Amino acid sequence: MAKTKRREILRSLGMMGGGVLLGAGARSLGAEGAGPATPAPAWHYRKLDPARVAERVYRIFPEGGCMYALVGGIVQSLAETEGEPYRSFPLAMMRYGEGGVGGWASICGVVNGAGAVVGLFYGDRPKEEREALINEFNSWYEATALPQYQPAKPEWAPTVPASTAQSVLCHQSVSRWCEVSEKTAFSMEKKERCRRLTVDGVLKIVGILNRALEGGKPAAALAPAVQACTACHGSKGRGDAMGKMSCAPCHKLPDPHP
Amino acid sequence: MAKTKRREILRSLGMMGGGVLLGAGARSLGAEGAGPATPAPAWHYRKLDPARVAERVYRIFPEGGCMYALVGGIVQSLAETEGEPYRSFPLAMMRYGEGGVGGWASICGVVNGAGAVVGLFYGDRPKEEREALINEFNSWYEATALPQYQPAKPEWAPTVPASTAQSVLCHQSVSRWCEVSEKTAFSMEKKERCRRLTVDGVLKIVGILNRALEGGKPAAALAPAVQACTACHGSKGRGDAMGKMSCAPCHKLPDPHP
Repeated sequence: MAKTKRREILRSLGMMGGGVLLGAGARSLGAEGAGPATPAPAWHYRKLDPARVAERVYRIFPEGGCMYALVGGIVQSLAETEGEPYRSFPLAMMRYGEGGVGGWASICGVVNGAGAVVGLFYGDRPKEEREALINEFNSWYEATALPQYQPAKPEWAPTVPASTAQSVLCHQSVSRWCEVSEKTAFSMEKKERCRRLTVDGVLKIVGILNRALEGGKPAAALAPAVQACTACHGSKGRGDAMGKMSCAPCHKLPDPHP
Repeated sequence: MAKTKRREILRSLGMMGGGVLLGAGARSLGAEGAGPATPAPAWHYRKLDPARVAERVYRIFPEGGCMYALVGGIVQSLAETEGEPYRSFPLAMMRYGEGGVGGWASICGVVNGAGAVVGLFYGDRPKEEREALINEFNSWYEATALPQYQPAKPEWAPTVPASTAQSVLCHQSVSRWCEVSEKTAFSMEKKERCRRLTVDGVLKIVGILNRALEGGKPAAALAPAVQACTACHGSKGRGDAMGKMSCAPCHKLPDPHP
């Protein structure tokens, strides 16, 4: 077989190695270097049925926790109808987000998972588009009494009190729930709470993505209290504080406050 | 060509579609449903040269920020030598981690990226293995004066003061640096600081992964202060606090403390 012919066949089979055939399809691995020889798969969102995704998320939660279940609910649903590239998504990776990243209770895995999903479908779009979607999700998470989802057959606890996290951080979200429920952070009720909250999260992000797909605008504003703080401390003020998280859970205003 | 033979060849080439050959290789999408028809690619870590990865991370940082650059430094390096599945990794997704997830300043993207890398290579291993690696990385991040990396040709600022974050959270990490440097969170010095810190992070996680590959044990213990708090408040005590983050930046002990 002629060498050129063989290269063409290998290319068509995606088997050409070694960085030789850098070309147009370098989306997966960024703009330069180590670009894929084959055109990288496109990760396009397709409209999903929230109810079906919700059932899946509740079901797969025990396999890998919050971030895994939220991302898996979406990616597995798309794999079922669309095939690749969703079938090859490295979903097991998302287990790292459990317990606020390796049990550190930093960012809630539901929030981290929703962010990752936005990244997956909007990774090549302008940063402002990603941030608008994440802003809407995170503002909802901070201010909403959760969980709300009621599984058909609750597996770990029959009833779960709802609480408002006031924060996107796992530690604060769980601590607030412990105060309200008077249960420990290691109880079966808490595990059931996080399982249901993950379903609430996927319902929210699927709603946001479905609306965005149809050209709808994200709900714009951050919480008024956060806007008030960042007006002076953010990039247009003193510039000594970065972020959009609710300030009040950690900061008390000095009295008098300038 | 006999049908069986053809199926074998297609299977070996990873070209069998349509949900027919569900089998042993369902790793990418979890244990049930929507399993890949083709054997899922295995995401195995291979030993990397820290110096080469470091150069790449500094270079690609402007393409997508902290989490993107850390994960990209590792995945692009593996794509260069190993080909698939690294070439098809959805790296653009990782742009969501910039600025502590969509600019919210929650978890630092370097910490989130290191966790994601651990998830990618240890996603199918017992949770304890992931947590040991993440514990080592995060404890180092909290307690180490960063950045330390000195680029050959600094692009955004010639010199950058180092500070100890005392936290894995972006907001606290950046605020601490602003105090020490007397620069704003929106200055070019701060951007250069985060760029160099991302290189420090990839050097640390590559060192951890290289050692783990050779059978070395992760450095075990959490910070003594965190152990002291969780002894009473964690799962073996009152159970009213979950997590491993340093407590002191947000909590002052009541006086007297029981």
